[in-house]
Amino acid sequence: MFIGIDLGGTNIKVGLFDDQLQHVDELWRATQSELNSATVISNMIATVQDLLVQNQIQASTIQAIGIGVPGLLDIDAGVSKFSPNFMNWQDVPIKEIFENQFHVPVFIDNDVRVNLYGEWQFGAGVGQQNLLMVTLGTGLGSGVVMDGRVLYGATASAGELGHMNMYRHGRPCACGSTGCLGRYVSARGIVKTAQEKLASGTTSILTDWTHDDPSKITAKMLSQADEQHDQLAHTVWQETGALLGYGLANAINLYNPAMIIIGGGVANAGERLFTPTKQVVQAHGLKIAVAACQIVTAKLGDRAGMVGAAIMAQRRKLKNSNTV
Amino acid sequence: MFIGIDLGGTNIKVGLFDDQLQHVDELWRATQSELNSATVISNMIATVQDLLVQNQIQASTIQAIGIGVPGLLDIDAGVSKFSPNFMNWQDVPIKEIFENQFHVPVFIDNDVRVNLYGEWQFGAGVGQQNLLMVTLGTGLGSGVVMDGRVLYGATASAGELGHMNMYRHGRPCACGSTGCLGRYVSARGIVKTAQEKLASGTTSILTDWTHDDPSKITAKMLSQADEQHDQLAHTVWQETGALLGYGLANAINLYNPAMIIIGGGVANAGERLFTPTKQVVQAHGLKIAVAACQIVTAKLGDRAGMVGAAIMAQRRKLKNSNTV
Repeated sequence: MFIGIDLGGTNIKVGLFDDQLQHVDELWRATQSELNSATVISNMIATVQDLLVQNQIQASTIQAIGIGVPGLLDIDAGVSKFSPNFMNWQDVPIKEIFENQFHVPVFIDNDVRVNLYGEWQFGAGVGQQNLLMVTLGTGLGSGVVMDGRVLYGATASAGELGHMNMYRHGRPCACGSTGCLGRYVSARGIVKTAQEKLASGTTSILTDWTHDDPSKITAKMLSQADEQHDQLAHTVWQETGALLGYGLANAINLYNPAMIIIGGGVANAGERLFTPTKQVVQAHGLKIAVAACQIVTAKLGDRAGMVGAAIMAQRRKLKNSNTV
Repeated sequence: MFIGIDLGGTNIKVGLFDDQLQHVDELWRATQSELNSATVISNMIATVQDLLVQNQIQASTIQAIGIGVPGLLDIDAGVSKFSPNFMNWQDVPIKEIFENQFHVPVFIDNDVRVNLYGEWQFGAGVGQQNLLMVTLGTGLGSGVVMDGRVLYGATASAGELGHMNMYRHGRPCACGSTGCLGRYVSARGIVKTAQEKLASGTTSILTDWTHDDPSKITAKMLSQADEQHDQLAHTVWQETGALLGYGLANAINLYNPAMIIIGGGVANAGERLFTPTKQVVQAHGLKIAVAACQIVTAKLGDRAGMVGAAIMAQRRKLKNSNTV
């Protein structure tokens, strides 16, 4: 049996899987990320223990635990160094804590990368050897499989499209650069684009809907406004889709994937986002590489992380390696 | 023994290597790429035969022949589909022709990728697991090693930075897109930038040097003009270096290499190009990834292709695979 944990800002999701990584059971609990690392860790441990108890399983029968963690990691050491959405969280030795608690091998990896493992092995990417996954949530996350292996790179940040420079003098990013793709193509980015257009005097139904408070705009609201033929909302989706297109055209040129899987809440916008995206990809990607690449949406939704974390743990246990 | 062939637009370079890939001998001959594929192929075969004769070696003692070929390839089939700088050249079955001639396994690969194999195993990249090589010649070529393997991707175009979109409405490129990196950061691109500045009225010593014929400007001339404090030349190098910086910052963010090797004739410009490049990389690359990545110049020069082609052939013979 394997355990896969998806540590999110809102929920801790813990999945129990058999040796063929088939789903046995799962348990979710609130993360309480607004408190501190000790609370979050004890919530995670309690969720694992409850899941073991309700399945009448001893911890010693678990082969390995895999954990997907957002933010900056030292994957080899199993330490979560920093996570922007977690309060009082720094250099948390997750691997050590869990190994001391459960006495089984524990492996951690990036939250986006465990989603990638899940969609690759059990979701939209089954059978693919060259695969890019992009998650459009609050921000933009991504990971890549090339020639049959998930890529890590020198400091485990390979496959990250979010900081591709799209404007030489664009929006400032927490990374220190400006004009990063993720500052535009993400829930937060789309809302910001709409707010900028309102501030520059464009009229929109959103002014009524938010009672003239632009801070209340959401990405979902922009989809609803577009359905009602709101011109501002339509322009926001067109511009965002085109920018994603330039980002994916570059990614196709650099990684040459056979498939791009797009997941995350913003992907629910569907064709209002993807039609301009695909137009730009066709116009600006290398022709042979574009023809060889299908763009699809994710299949597993918010369950990809649990199974992906279990897959990651199984692979690393088999290779007896912390770094895959 | 292995043979490595670097098929260039000007010269055919053939190297003979022992089983440890140590250099035994080499022979160069003019390609005559302005003629036709039959002439080029027969020049290649004759060079191999002469090299075997002058070393008193039977073809049957050769373990494999590797050939680096510019342009569009079907690597698996061993066919050179199209090469922009070769006349009367289409769908040339190089692997088949050479296997019929010499009765040993023959493998082909991209010219830039065989350079990468050479610099990785015997040049500036020895011991690296994550490595990007950029060749700044007439155009911009590149290839990448990640997690210890040369990347290919779905249609063998992975690692190619030359078509990264740098300007939404930039110079048209033969690929069908506009604003591609290689249209600016290459010998041809730098000359074009200088010509555009002259046409817009900027004065320069280049006008005297070329007797008012901008078509005579060369990249080397721009280095010489910069040495004489010519403002136009200085600006061209600054702008080109900065643009290369944005391209490498994106490449560092996407591939997370521990080393970037820059080769090709334009790399001889040295710090006049690399100083602005490194400034932009520092400002726009992900901090941890940039700190982990050194930028160096190539070591093997125009001999990298021969040994790289031999390395590529040895690896594929060992794996008994056409695709590495």
